[in-house]
Parts: sequence; structure tokens; C-alpha cells
Amino acid sequence: MEDKTIRLQLSETKKEKPNSDQLIFGRAFTDHMFVMDYSDPLGWHNASIVPYQPLMIDPSAMIFHYGQSVFEGLKAFRTADGEVQLFRPQKNFERLNLSSDRLCIPPIDEEFALKAIKQLVTVDKEWVPDAEGTSLYIRPFIISTEPYLGVAPSRHYKFIVILSPVGAYYKEGINPVKIAVENKYVRAVKGGTGEAKTGGNYAASLKAQEDVSKEGFAQVLWLDGVEQKYVEEVGSMNVFFKIGGEVVTPKLNGSILAGVTRNSVIELLKHWGIPVSERRISMEELYQAHQDGLLEEAFGSGTAAVISPIGQLTWDGKDMVINGGNTGEISQKVYDTITGIQYGKVEDPFNWIVKVEAKSAVKH
Amino acid sequence: MEDKTIRLQLSETKKEKPNSDQLIFGRAFTDHMFVMDYSDPLGWHNASIVPYQPLMIDPSAMIFHYGQSVFEGLKAFRTADGEVQLFRPQKNFERLNLSSDRLCIPPIDEEFALKAIKQLVTVDKEWVPDAEGTSLYIRPFIISTEPYLGVAPSRHYKFIVILSPVGAYYKEGINPVKIAVENKYVRAVKGGTGEAKTGGNYAASLKAQEDVSKEGFAQVLWLDGVEQKYVEEVGSMNVFFKIGGEVVTPKLNGSILAGVTRNSVIELLKHWGIPVSERRISMEELYQAHQDGLLEEAFGSGTAAVISPIGQLTWDGKDMVINGGNTGEISQKVYDTITGIQYGKVEDPFNWIVKVEAKSAVKH
Ligand SMILES: Cc1ncc(COP(=O)(O)O)c(C=O)c1O
Ligand SMILES: Cc1ncc(COP(=O)(O)O)c(C=O)c1O
Repeated sequence: MEDKTIRLQLSETKKEKPNSDQLIFGRAFTDHMFVMDYSDPLGWHNASIVPYQPLMIDPSAMIFHYGQSVFEGLKAFRTADGEVQLFRPQKNFERLNLSSDRLCIPPIDEEFALKAIKQLVTVDKEWVPDAEGTSLYIRPFIISTEPYLGVAPSRHYKFIVILSPVGAYYKEGINPVKIAVENKYVRAVKGGTGEAKTGGNYAASLKAQEDVSKEGFAQVLWLDGVEQKYVEEVGSMNVFFKIGGEVVTPKLNGSILAGVTRNSVIELLKHWGIPVSERRISMEELYQAHQDGLLEEAFGSGTAAVISPIGQLTWDGKDMVINGGNTGEISQKVYDTITGIQYGKVEDPFNWIVKVEAKSAVKH
Repeated sequence: MEDKTIRLQLSETKKEKPNSDQLIFGRAFTDHMFVMDYSDPLGWHNASIVPYQPLMIDPSAMIFHYGQSVFEGLKAFRTADGEVQLFRPQKNFERLNLSSDRLCIPPIDEEFALKAIKQLVTVDKEWVPDAEGTSLYIRPFIISTEPYLGVAPSRHYKFIVILSPVGAYYKEGINPVKIAVENKYVRAVKGGTGEAKTGGNYAASLKAQEDVSKEGFAQVLWLDGVEQKYVEEVGSMNVFFKIGGEVVTPKLNGSILAGVTRNSVIELLKHWGIPVSERRISMEELYQAHQDGLLEEAFGSGTAAVISPIGQLTWDGKDMVINGGNTGEISQKVYDTITGIQYGKVEDPFNWIVKVEAKSAVKH
């Protein structure tokens, strides 16, 4: 990228902001968005913050046909003293480029992208809600826009960032969920796109989710695509189990997304001296541990909920109630610590926080 | 769908048509397109033929994030006496609905969709080229348009049909290609979306294709995602082999697309009394057959090329030259017959042809 200036075009009207207690994830968007174009051989160019607006895209654009796209998800948090801060945003842009590589999308300059979201969040700073547990969700994504029906990497892309204020995930305290182990559908397989954050993985997941939610389950637990024996993820989260005092999570194997929260949980546990290991975990093992009274906790990890305790796991008609259906001690402690760091309430020994400097704000 | 009328808004300007000998697949589009909307609880509505134009879509629309989409591909052919006809279009809409079901997209009325494309092709009839081997490519597709970042089936969709005149696939006679057997990346797996025609499958295929094309191969041959042993497809085509007098093709197993051309090839072979079977085929078997001099022909089948003979297959560094690198007898015969039927040059014993009735054309 040659030209690293960000053109700024402010919105003439301002939308009304939803009430803090009426925020629904991903439904309301702020006044502005960041857009940058890619074309061959120009590279990434034309970085701009513009009013939030519909995209004008040719119906033959590749994104509508061959799904070449990647995305990210992170949050900005408002601290008690009114500052706005991000949680490990570098990790998201690093992962975005890894996803892009798998999808044959040209990489972006990670530092520049971070600068862009800081500037965008600064412009829409008033949209960062301040009620307990609320935040501003940041969605960077890249879509392939070349108007061409051939199956080939696109030569035109748009990198876009949109912002959505979101409410507290747990309004009435953390609530453990019921999860069904999926043994018909597969989310991802070795050699596929599972470790990339790309649309097709999510499209592939809808059917299983639809089927189990009819039976009262919150999410599915995905097994590996090869043997359908080993645990991979839970819904759109990574998954952890505490078995006989040790915390385990599936090892990254190419079909599992490398969650930022997953990595943070592992770091925290190590920091606390709690045994944690990344390895292959079979359903058979989990079931046996449960039978033996050793399956002490289970939880999902992800940006949306941070920690989502699993109160029950149902596998092939067998119900495994975990920790009496209650939130486990470690689940709670990890949740409290990560959210504490995010909102600036507890010390950040890992330098995970990146401040959105209000002083670099554009005057308007 | 309640209202089955198709609103017609003709384009005020007409684009210049490319020369028949300069047509490139999927780059030029005709003057009009068909659009129909879906919303909950209205269902499919607002069917219209309108001037070809960019779509205005919210940046939060699901298609840009979670890849919920399906598509089809078929062709209209001009016969020697100037008529325009379609090849088995019902099969495409049947498959579209099967794909939609896997992707949690509401079904369309297949008969109405056929009526819509007939009418659209009639409106843009002048765009159906008449030079040898040329045709009008028809691309129906459905995209999820709800402006919502939640991972859930969209409640808004657009069904769109665009048309693109395409040149002859084989300008200098059929040309066998070199194919690399892919053993790193996987296109689809049992329990995944392989048998649906959805964007994510194609996005997942780009990387492997990019890697092998650097080494001079035209396409990859995909193996199954579970054992990486069994043949699935070749590029975006189904695949056939003639082994010791018998024609074999991989059995539909959930991860293979049920090609319309594949089905037509099987029907034709049966009609001719040539032994054909659908079954599991391992690379080991193919290699052994080649060593024994029994691998007599290999070809891909698909709407774009109809038949694409495979002159060489490279597996783990082993080159298998097939039929001396030449087009086989059956490959040629199948190609001649299917294209003959498509252009109205040979008898159509199966009733595969559907005429686009010019007399139902809208006056303009
Ligand atoms: C499939 C999948 N797994 C895991 C995660 C968790 O990743 P992170 O902790 O970075 O949000 C996500 C995203 O939220 C996801 O979409
Ligand atoms: C993955 C894949 N396999 C096979 C085919 C062949 O299908 P058809 O003969 O219907 O064109 C296609 C589409 O053309 C395809 O995309």
C-alpha cells in the first residue's frame, strides 16, 4: 500500500442511538464505516471513512457466487473513566491475513488496519455504550468484487469495517447452556477451510444448528470431519473441559478456528498455574470422564460471550449433566478476569489492552 | 408465492454485443436481469425483469459475512433455424432447491423459475450468439440479504438470474488436459456442503487450483475428505473413467455435486448399451488399472465444457498418461451427441430440450 492516508467524509445526519438496555447483537450500526479497495496491480488503496451506506455491487461480483470472503470480530469497551479500549486487536488482523491466505485474498497491512479501526471508532466514539456489559462490536471483512463468473481468485476486493453497539451477553448472570453433540453434519475437515474465518464455514453450520434448536439445544458441539469422534468446537466458540483437575482444549489441527479468547484463556490458566493442555479429545473420553465423575467443567470461549458454560452435553441420546448444570469455578474466574481486563477494572499483566486514543480524534 | 406475474421494465439503452469470436466466459452480461425478493412472512414476491444493474446491499447483509447462498449454471443454445433452446433446465431448478435446503434457504417454485428464465432469455434473445459452439450462459443465484450479523438463516433473500454470452469452449478441437491429484486440500466431506452448489465450496477450492496451475496443471482431481483415497470430482466437473471396457464414475455420496451433464452421460451410455456403473473408485485402483494397461479413457463432465478429456493424471509424482494423451472414442462420442442435442442437430430421444418459445415473447 502506497498511500496510507485515510480520507474522511463525515455523515451529515446522525442516526438515533438505541438505548443501552435494548441493544441487540448485530442489528444497529453506527454512522460511519471504513472502506478500502483492492485492485490488480494497484494493491490496496482509497482508504476512507464514509457515512454508513449500502454497497453498490455488480450482480456478477464474485462474492455472490463463489464465496471468496473473510471476516473478523472484536470489540471496543468503555472504561469507568470514559476511555475506549480494544482487546488484543493485533490478533484479529493477524488471523484475518491467515484466513485471507487460505482464501487466496491479498493480505492487508495489519498495522494500518489497526490504525483504521482506531480512527473509525474514534469518529463514532459516542456509539460505544457505557452500561454494564455493553460494548461496540467491530466487524472487519473482505469481499471479492470482480464482476466475473469464472472460478478463480478475484482481482478486486473491498475491505470494510462496520460497527454495531451490543448489549450485555448475560443480563441475568451467566447461564449454562445445553449443547447437542453433532454426528450428522460436519463444519470443517482437515484440508478444508475450518481454520479460516470465512463465510462458507458459517453457511455450512446453519442446518445442524436449526435441527438441534428445535430440540431445545443452544448450540451443537462439532466433531472432526474425518472420524466424527474428536471434539472440535462448540457453535462459533472454542471449547474447554476440566477433567480431573486439568483443563483441556482441542489442539489446533487445521480445522479449528484459533480463537483469540481461546488463546487468552490458555495464557490466563498458565499464569495462574492451573494445568492446561491442548490435545485431541474424543467424545468417548469425555463420556468416560463423566461416568467416572471427573468431568468437572465445560465451557465455550469466544468474543461474543467471552465464556459460555456448558451445563449439559447430549451425545447419541445420552445426557451428561456437568457440574450440576451450574457455572464452574474456573469458568467464572476466567470470565471475571477477561471481562475485568476488557473494561479496565482489573490489572492487565499481558498488555492485552490497546487504547483508542481520543486525543487523535478528528474534530467534528 | 401468491403473485406469479413478472413485472417487466425494459432497458432504455442497449449495450453493444461482443463479437462471437471474442466472447470470454462470464465477463459480458446482457441488457436485463431477473430479480425476485423473499422476506418473512411474505415469501417470494416482486418478480421482475429489469435492466441489468448493480445491487444496492447493506454492508451488514448476511451474504457478505456468512456465505449463505446457492447458484446454478445452465445454457441457452441457438439452433440452425434460429430458435433458442435450453438443456434440461428442470434439473437445475431441482438441484437449486436441494442446495437451498442444505443452506436453510427457502425453496422457489421450480416451474415459475423456469418460466422466468424463458421470459428473460426471450427479452434478451438477440444476445444468444449463433457462431459454432457459442451459447448464452444462464446464472440463477440466491443470496441472503438480511442486514444482521447473527449466525442464523437470513429472513431476506434475493433470487437473481443474469445472462452472459459465451464463446466456444474448444476453438481448435477438443484438447485433453493435465490434471493433478490433490492430496493436501479437500473440497468437501461427508456431512458438509459438497453436494450443494454453494459459494463456500468454490472458495475452498481456489488455493489448490492456484498451487497446481503454477506447475502447469489445468485442474485438480479431488479426493474424499475422510480418507483422501477415493476419487470425487475434477475441478468443477464430475469425472468418468473407462476401465477395461466399463465406464465408471464416483457414486453420489453426499460430498459430490450431482451434475446434470454427469446424469446425461450415464443415460446416454445406458441407451447405447455401454456398461456404466456408479461406485467408489480409489486412486490405487486407477493406478493399478493404468499399470495394467486397462485405464482406457478419463474425462470430466460439466455444463461449461460438456466433456473435458483427461490426457494425463499425476498422483504423488507419478504421471499416468491416458489414451496416449488423446481424446478417447467414448469421450468424443458423448461430446458430439450431447452438443448435437443441445444445438438441435441430432435427435433428442430423452426429451432433454426445452424450447424458449419466441412467440411468448414480450413485444418491444
Ligand atoms: C468458528 C469459531 N470458533 C471460535 C470462535 C472464537 O474466536 P474468538 O475468541 O477469536 O472470538 C469464533 C469467533 O468468534 C468462531 O467463529
Ligand atoms: C463442483 C462441480 N461439480 C460438477 C459440476 C458439473 O455439473 P453440471 O454438469 O450440472 O454442470 C459442476 C458445475 O458445473 C460443479 O461446480
